[in-house]
Amino acid sequence: MSLLVVGSIALDTIETPFGRIEDALGGSATYFGLAASLLTPVRLVGVVGNDFPPQHVEMLKRRRIDTTGLVVAEGGTFPWKGRYEGDMSAAETLEVALNVFGTFDPRIPPEYEDTRYVFLANGSPRVQRAVRSQLPQADFVVCDTMNYWIDNAPDELKALFGEVDGVVLNDAEARMLTGRDVLMDAAAEILDMGPGLVIIKKGEHGAMLCGDGQVVALPAYPTSDVKDPTGAGDSFAGGFMGRIAATGDRSAAGLKSALGYATVVASIAVEGLGTKALAAATPEDIDKRLDGFREMLAL
Amino acid sequence: MSLLVVGSIALDTIETPFGRIEDALGGSATYFGLAASLLTPVRLVGVVGNDFPPQHVEMLKRRRIDTTGLVVAEGGTFPWKGRYEGDMSAAETLEVALNVFGTFDPRIPPEYEDTRYVFLANGSPRVQRAVRSQLPQADFVVCDTMNYWIDNAPDELKALFGEVDGVVLNDAEARMLTGRDVLMDAAAEILDMGPGLVIIKKGEHGAMLCGDGQVVALPAYPTSDVKDPTGAGDSFAGGFMGRIAATGDRSAAGLKSALGYATVVASIAVEGLGTKALAAATPEDIDKRLDGFREMLAL
Repeated sequence: MSLLVVGSIALDTIETPFGRIEDALGGSATYFGLAASLLTPVRLVGVVGNDFPPQHVEMLKRRRIDTTGLVVAEGGTFPWKGRYEGDMSAAETLEVALNVFGTFDPRIPPEYEDTRYVFLANGSPRVQRAVRSQLPQADFVVCDTMNYWIDNAPDELKALFGEVDGVVLNDAEARMLTGRDVLMDAAAEILDMGPGLVIIKKGEHGAMLCGDGQVVALPAYPTSDVKDPTGAGDSFAGGFMGRIAATGDRSAAGLKSALGYATVVASIAVEGLGTKALAAATPEDIDKRLDGFREMLAL
Repeated sequence: MSLLVVGSIALDTIETPFGRIEDALGGSATYFGLAASLLTPVRLVGVVGNDFPPQHVEMLKRRRIDTTGLVVAEGGTFPWKGRYEGDMSAAETLEVALNVFGTFDPRIPPEYEDTRYVFLANGSPRVQRAVRSQLPQADFVVCDTMNYWIDNAPDELKALFGEVDGVVLNDAEARMLTGRDVLMDAAAEILDMGPGLVIIKKGEHGAMLCGDGQVVALPAYPTSDVKDPTGAGDSFAGGFMGRIAATGDRSAAGLKSALGYATVVASIAVEGLGTKALAAATPEDIDKRLDGFREMLAL
């Protein structure tokens, strides 16, 4: 079934202990789209500047990503320059300028209006709410957020949480938002804000899904080949939503299965600089890694 | 099959956000013994002072713990006074005095000489090696350690690692010992020191087992009822070794199964202050929780 992502498309310059890439295709919607498109076709809404290399758009199209909703605006594409050191658990942002993304007011094209599955990638909760209101037929809308919005737009964020079906955020954000140290308590408080589902991402420590009386914790897929954590969270969300959209199964078992896909897709994403590993991955790679993950977890 | 633990027996005074206990039964060998005895009989070697309440010894005996190796020495029992705050991820030690444990030179009683499964709880690696050498028939010896020994006796510790079959330690200790940030790299380096098996405990994030070409990562069992993390690591080790000793199965599947038991037993241990939850647990509680854990992980 149809899956839409609304989020950033960026040109990333990234340094990790394993290498450096410059002005490479990045952004939350890009990582999400590349990840989800391994499982189902994806519709994209985003904005780039007129400096955006056309070959990037061609690459997205080749990967079953519908770019009808991609706007090219006068100005520069959103650049992000970051560095990871040591265990790469946190990015140091060296340079950032929102450019055309800063004033982006997403419009859902008529061709997308029948979309049922929607991911609102990290962005202003005001804009996320405006997108949500343009999609009355969507019946499974999941949003991400970040520390900036928790600090600067807490009321708007809580209003958003009342209008979506699920929230995906990381452990530090969940603790910051709720003031609760224990993640299961933080998850319970977020569920009280409205969404039926909350997924807390814990990076190398895996993820936890809470909702519908179900709690599922999965470890990360063990890989010793982590080269660049950029986009891991959006790839995780892409694996999750891609699986849900591909099957339409939102039962407890369906959500758990999607959490497994999310975990495996994210583990592939971090094995290359930028989008390299994700762009090279095939549906067979996902299936193979998922088989190994399943076997590891069979007690 | 026979399982022996050599470690500390303490009188703990613990403060957590959920309560306070004073001069309660504690120590690594105690937590290990109570945990393992849910799965198999346990032999104990340790020392207490002549202030040690006899009802504690009776309690251990009631739980299939053979106290032939328990020495009562002139002096005070090892006291530990600690406090946990916030997410209780780290204990603040308020008071500690080794007392009779500081000069303890463990002797294996003749009745224990045929022991095949041995856990050397955290202690001086010199003493751990001396115990190991008294047990020539032991063919599965696993040790724990802590930051103090990594700092102060690194060479003795590496010699010990060359004489044991497995090492259990936490993530911070694994990183400290090897200087490697990525846990799988740290595990590989520890395996190079000699043991065939290394288990890295990650607290609320679960555990990872590496050895024999196998890598297994499991999440922690999700409980929102954490009251006191004291002894979680020793209870984890008790669940692991208890299962191995009960089945004799050290195949890849057997080790993975034992990791599941370890996880579940540790999750019970943290649900009460001190040894309270562990002392009240039954083998049926373990089986029931393990069934739920297995189901959660069935993707």
